[in-house]
Amino acid sequence: MSDHVYKKIELTGSSPTSIDDAITTAIAKASKTLRNLHWFEVTETRGQIEDGKVAYWQVTLKVGLRIED
Amino acid sequence: MSDHVYKKIELTGSSPTSIDDAITTAIAKASKTLRNLHWFEVTETRGQIEDGKVAYWQVTLKVGLRIED
Amino acid sequence: MSDHVYKKIELTGSSPTSIDDAITTAIAKASKTLRNLHWFEVTETRGQIEDGKVAYWQVTLKVGLRIED
Amino acid sequence: MSDHVYKKIELTGSSPTSIDDAITTAIAKASKTLRNLHWFEVTETRGQIEDGKVAYWQVTLKVGLRIED
Amino acid sequence: MSDHVYKKIELTGSSPTSIDDAITTAIAKASKTLRNLHWFEVTETRGQIEDGKVAYWQVTLKVGLRIED
Amino acid sequence: MSDHVYKKIELTGSSPTSIDDAITTAIAKASKTLRNLHWFEVTETRGQIEDGKVAYWQVTLKVGLRIED
Amino acid sequence: MSDHVYKKIELTGSSPTSIDDAITTAIAKASKTLRNLHWFEVTETRGQIEDGKVAYWQVTLKVGLRIED
Amino acid sequence: MSDHVYKKIELTGSSPTSIDDAITTAIAKASKTLRNLHWFEVTETRGQIEDGKVAYWQVTLKVGLRIED
Amino acid sequence: MSDHVYKKIELTGSSPTSIDDAITTAIAKASKTLRNLHWFEVTETRGQIEDGKVAYWQVTLKVGLRIED
Amino acid sequence: MSDHVYKKIELTGSSPTSIDDAITTAIAKASKTLRNLHWFEVTETRGQIEDGKVAYWQVTLKVGLRIED
Amino acid sequence: MSDHVYKKIELTGSSPTSIDDAITTAIAKASKTLRNLHWFEVTETRGQIEDGKVAYWQVTLKVGLRIED
Amino acid sequence: MSDHVYKKIELTGSSPTSIDDAITTAIAKASKTLRNLHWFEVTETRGQIEDGKVAYWQVTLKVGLRIED
Repeated sequence: MSDHVYKKIELTGSSPTSIDDAITTAIAKASKTLRNLHWFEVTETRGQIEDGKVAYWQVTLKVGLRIED
Repeated sequence: MSDHVYKKIELTGSSPTSIDDAITTAIAKASKTLRNLHWFEVTETRGQIEDGKVAYWQVTLKVGLRIED
Repeated sequence: MSDHVYKKIELTGSSPTSIDDAITTAIAKASKTLRNLHWFEVTETRGQIEDGKVAYWQVTLKVGLRIED
Repeated sequence: MSDHVYKKIELTGSSPTSIDDAITTAIAKASKTLRNLHWFEVTETRGQIEDGKVAYWQVTLKVGLRIED
Repeated sequence: MSDHVYKKIELTGSSPTSIDDAITTAIAKASKTLRNLHWFEVTETRGQIEDGKVAYWQVTLKVGLRIED
Repeated sequence: MSDHVYKKIELTGSSPTSIDDAITTAIAKASKTLRNLHWFEVTETRGQIEDGKVAYWQVTLKVGLRIED
Repeated sequence: MSDHVYKKIELTGSSPTSIDDAITTAIAKASKTLRNLHWFEVTETRGQIEDGKVAYWQVTLKVGLRIED
Repeated sequence: MSDHVYKKIELTGSSPTSIDDAITTAIAKASKTLRNLHWFEVTETRGQIEDGKVAYWQVTLKVGLRIED
Repeated sequence: MSDHVYKKIELTGSSPTSIDDAITTAIAKASKTLRNLHWFEVTETRGQIEDGKVAYWQVTLKVGLRIED
Repeated sequence: MSDHVYKKIELTGSSPTSIDDAITTAIAKASKTLRNLHWFEVTETRGQIEDGKVAYWQVTLKVGLRIED
Repeated sequence: MSDHVYKKIELTGSSPTSIDDAITTAIAKASKTLRNLHWFEVTETRGQIEDGKVAYWQVTLKVGLRIED
Repeated sequence: MSDHVYKKIELTGSSPTSIDDAITTAIAKASKTLRNLHWFEVTETRGQIEDGKVAYWQVTLKVGLRIED
């Protein structure tokens, strides 16, 4: 990790399928415009309910990305 | 959301299968007797271990429901 | 639970597949050398990112085991 | 307070006007069906944004009520 | 624990005697009207002071009860 | 919420008038350069004191905005 | 701020009017006997309920004051 | 509670006997020099161990006292 | 404390009698196999309920022990 | 602070030397591309270990910067 | 620690030099007017930034002092 | 990190010199008897005071070590 500096951004991904899918959706979207994504940490797991079922899983995560020199 | 008032209740669902299934089990059960469930947020993820395996996943969530007029 | 005494240890499991799999991996590994594992509670969910995808899911959990007499 | 027992319930009130109004709305609504409300404590202050303005203030509070004998 | 679903309620018991007594008072009261109480967890320990002595111990606990089928 | 991805940013607004005004000031400022602001959550309420009065109310909030496709 | 040392004290102000007024009441009272009050941070917002209304708003804050040389 | 202002101080009491006794010891001591003690809330429960036994119970509490006019 | 190094372990003791007894039970058990136990801090107080009474008090504590040279 | 609005960003700096140096490294790097950095607050202190020594100190901090008009 | 009672006060020290120096500055200042200071615990580490450098390190700590008989 | 499993242990190091030194002392000591130490995270910074000076810095850290196959 030498003397690199990292930035953490906070994202919320959503998915009709699962917790894991909400996370991968958020990361896939972020990686379209940001480079050097390194790691994430989950800070919140929520969801919307419709008709007694989970309509959307919503997961908030902090994503660490290396700032380029 | 206008001037609605919501109540949050706290539930623990369990499942032999997965974290996601423990959540959907809790919500399905609650929706049998309660109306207007809107959203949930996970507050605890635990489980019981037997023979080196997860016997039951136990997830605690707060569920928000709209109080009817 | 009578007058048993339990010890909690903290483990981090990782998996290329899913959150649930990272947990079961940690528990399976711990059960090879430790007896009487009873329950776990998740304390952190993180992961490594490569090429816009989750390369490894890393889940930290506290595991409770009964101290034998 | 002698040997009374109290129950805490968690409510979210909303208002287009202010934080204070979201709280009083939640309490007024709860007092229509519940008796013996004694105190509250705020646990979350959030809101919805529309056109660069706060459309709704949403405040979550725990309300303590005395259980009658 | 199979696929049961549990509900957590939050209670505050008080007692002129001790912390432990405030807890047992809250649970005894709750068990008069609720069935299937399984476990509790303490979330707050407070008290009222009069004349340099503890007049009342007040303990808040979450109580888990199994929802019947 | 379908499969949208949201970003949370953290802002501190200040106002000589009130808590509510410090929040609306921060949101108004942010909406000049950012689109799709959806919700906020308060994380800190502070202030500066001068001559025994509140000179400035300072409120920190996380603001969620939808990332456009 | 050079090499000044500050002390933080914790106060609870109450007001029949509003959250903001409970804060200004606490600060006004403290400034009668203490000098060099610089800033505050809110740690708890509570209140007493009577007849379905907020009878008193009670806000706890930490106040920072500069220790004189 | 009208428009009174309260101050919270933080004390640690110790006792060779019990948790409850460490609390009453701290309050008894504080009431020798301070008036108008109203309530307390426990923030930490610790202790010293000697020869496999609890030599001293140490409980930290915040005590609220009314500031006189 | 000079340049000693301490290790903290986390234990859960249980007792049918009281909170204090659950703690002393855990420490007594740990001291049978571990030396140099110095202090503890309570992290969780829970219990099992049967027939409207506390069947078992369960207290989790971190125990600090000095690592020998 | 009048009616300025501030943004908080979260950075992780690393250094082979010390905690303080990891912080100054992160701030120096951020100040190359961002103006009006005002204050920081440390949220996490971690590090990598190699051969029984700290190879890298890693400190995460939130940095507040004034948004220009 | 027998049956002594301790008071905790909260201080913020600042220093242009380092985190450690901000702590020792706060303690040195407090010890000029207070006796029996025993221990401290850090609760916040912050700082002011000027020209891309840390102008002042600001560390908040709780200091425990024994109340004399 | 593939499918490795890590264990976190909690240590408190002390030093008469500095925060950084208390951390390196704890890690050096642990590495004498444990292999595969990978990372640490600080959870508490405390100290003992004597004669208005810091006699010992005491830092608690969690250390992650890889469990060997």
